[in-house]
Amino acid sequence: MSVTFATGFSAAGVAAGISAVAGKKDLALVVNNGPLDAAAGVFTSNRFCAAPVVWSRKAVANGHIKAVILNSGGANACTGEAGYAQSLATAEKVADLLSLSDASDVAVCSTGLIGELLPLDHVLSGAEHAYAALANTAEAGADASHAIMTTDTKPKTVELTGSTGYKIGGMVKGSGMIAPQLATMLCVITTDAVVSAGQLQAALAVATEHSFNRIDVDGCMSTNDTVLLLASGASGIEPDKDEFNELVRQACASLARQIVGDGEGASHDIRITVTGATSEQAALACGRAVAASNLLKCAISGNDPNWGRIVSSLGTVPTDIAPYDSNKVTVDVNGVRICENGGAGRDRSEVDMTGREVHIDIDLNAGDAEATVWTDDLTHEYVHINADYES
Amino acid sequence: MSVTFATGFSAAGVAAGISAVAGKKDLALVVNNGPLDAAAGVFTSNRFCAAPVVWSRKAVANGHIKAVILNSGGANACTGEAGYAQSLATAEKVADLLSLSDASDVAVCSTGLIGELLPLDHVLSGAEHAYAALANTAEAGADASHAIMTTDTKPKTVELTGSTGYKIGGMVKGSGMIAPQLATMLCVITTDAVVSAGQLQAALAVATEHSFNRIDVDGCMSTNDTVLLLASGASGIEPDKDEFNELVRQACASLARQIVGDGEGASHDIRITVTGATSEQAALACGRAVAASNLLKCAISGNDPNWGRIVSSLGTVPTDIAPYDSNKVTVDVNGVRICENGGAGRDRSEVDMTGREVHIDIDLNAGDAEATVWTDDLTHEYVHINADYES
Repeated sequence: MSVTFATGFSAAGVAAGISAVAGKKDLALVVNNGPLDAAAGVFTSNRFCAAPVVWSRKAVANGHIKAVILNSGGANACTGEAGYAQSLATAEKVADLLSLSDASDVAVCSTGLIGELLPLDHVLSGAEHAYAALANTAEAGADASHAIMTTDTKPKTVELTGSTGYKIGGMVKGSGMIAPQLATMLCVITTDAVVSAGQLQAALAVATEHSFNRIDVDGCMSTNDTVLLLASGASGIEPDKDEFNELVRQACASLARQIVGDGEGASHDIRITVTGATSEQAALACGRAVAASNLLKCAISGNDPNWGRIVSSLGTVPTDIAPYDSNKVTVDVNGVRICENGGAGRDRSEVDMTGREVHIDIDLNAGDAEATVWTDDLTHEYVHINADYES
Repeated sequence: MSVTFATGFSAAGVAAGISAVAGKKDLALVVNNGPLDAAAGVFTSNRFCAAPVVWSRKAVANGHIKAVILNSGGANACTGEAGYAQSLATAEKVADLLSLSDASDVAVCSTGLIGELLPLDHVLSGAEHAYAALANTAEAGADASHAIMTTDTKPKTVELTGSTGYKIGGMVKGSGMIAPQLATMLCVITTDAVVSAGQLQAALAVATEHSFNRIDVDGCMSTNDTVLLLASGASGIEPDKDEFNELVRQACASLARQIVGDGEGASHDIRITVTGATSEQAALACGRAVAASNLLKCAISGNDPNWGRIVSSLGTVPTDIAPYDSNKVTVDVNGVRICENGGAGRDRSEVDMTGREVHIDIDLNAGDAEATVWTDDLTHEYVHINADYES
């Protein structure tokens, strides 16, 4: 279903010849048919952000977006003015097809190899093809979610329904180069609820902070991360604000969780929950430090709940950021307390590591705040994907 | 030669039955025979620092150390009061053997698995064995450098001679869990120069900052890092202060470089030099961000000079830490400018990646400061070592 689950949206996904994989769907178009065109966006904080990020950040600034065109097969990052001109030409093409007077009603997203211009003629002819294929069907939404995939092994979508009948749909691509700072990867979320751009932006900011900003596949922040939230108002329903914000949060959390589940080469999804912290920021800093440990991620891929590698990562977090006493820290892996008071607890051979999910629960015993982050293990397959293929 | 290159020192390396590898040399003893016993030390900043670090930091605080006992086969980290008692008992045993009145004249270093106590009876009987084997020969120094190895594939030593005839020798172990903050791994450097503890500490602080603190094998800071610098004064030579500091710096740089050369599973040693920065700190922050990129390290292991992964890592460094204009950045890999003005330069197929060393030169074009860091590539073998073995 993806982005077409919410009424008032049509979508398409086509093979435009941008990707090096012949015949792969590589161009998606999402159109908001209204009556509203409220929109919000969150973007990468990478200083080498891509041309489409520069364009889309400006386009969404006034709170109005009528269409999003997304391509895989090329990031259009580090491509200078020529790359920016490509993003502009792409937006103008879509505006022309949709008879929009202003190209800045069109957001542009790209993903793929950094440093090369796109085959613009393929993008523009693909836009025509996608325009002709636009539909508000489940199949069209699925096509769009396939067209944005790169090293992803499966499409990632979400569908939620509010208590009063409005709907939220979404799609995301992401598998590697995942370590967000403000946002991550290409994501389009749609709703037919009647909401203002201001409310969308507020909901999206909170939702991304607690979802895309709390996953880390490989510690590498992308140049192209974009999360867009579009409202058509087609349901005519004004949602309860708190419920709407919660559903946007759930949609982002589901999509972020799916990214971890499809992390490059991963054999385990790892949930790290830090409790007993003096602040949420302290808990988050500890969780992120553990999630970034290559040694731990290798151990998990070998089914070894190596708590020494967990606490040695915790020990790198400065005291002023996360006050705690190392002699009071406990660590449970999949429910077995293998580290107690900063030292050995139950034998780690008691931990069942056969499942896909690994749950690491760290109690700092220093306060009442907590945070959860998700990451993947580090496998031979991750090295294979990133050493032996060009991406 | 190792630590016995400088006169006034004797050493031994023996198999004490601490390591799980039967017959492996796993206990080293280094004794300063004087006439001086000046010493300096730098230690890990990890908050879960090991018992021997707690002990040795206190022991060296007064500027006097007469002997160092080092074991592989167990880190004695996260072992609480029982672990500290083991370090103390080990120091007391050595003091007893050497007829020293104060156990705090003996530093203790351990490396191996975190979270388990040492087999203390083996350590103590090994200390007797090592004491009996003490010699000031090249072979004895070599034995010591072998006894501290864990996943290291080769011993790492250095020998330097001052212009007036004094000598500096050293040994280090380190291969994985290398990402220093203040110091790294187990290192003992000896000199027969006549220098005070204060001068030793000053020389060591500067030298470690520019050597061990500028290498990063896997981003993981150890709980046990210790660097000790001992002076016997046996040459009777008071060195030129600047020359002595420079030689200590060279000794640390050589040993740090050897750690990178023996990084777990590495197939390439990567030198990252950042020039044109507004400050050395800015250059260092940029170099470290690039050195930490798993995606880049995988690309290098696949002989791909993927500059997109270099600039996307640079782009994560906050502007207030390293001001630069992303449109002015250049990147050379092995002398080929593959990124120019933040975009594509010469074709990356021109880069010869066949050598062990890879040189990445980044010019921020923002100032006159520079810094160099070293790291390794990320290979299947690294994952194998850390996923499939327990360490």
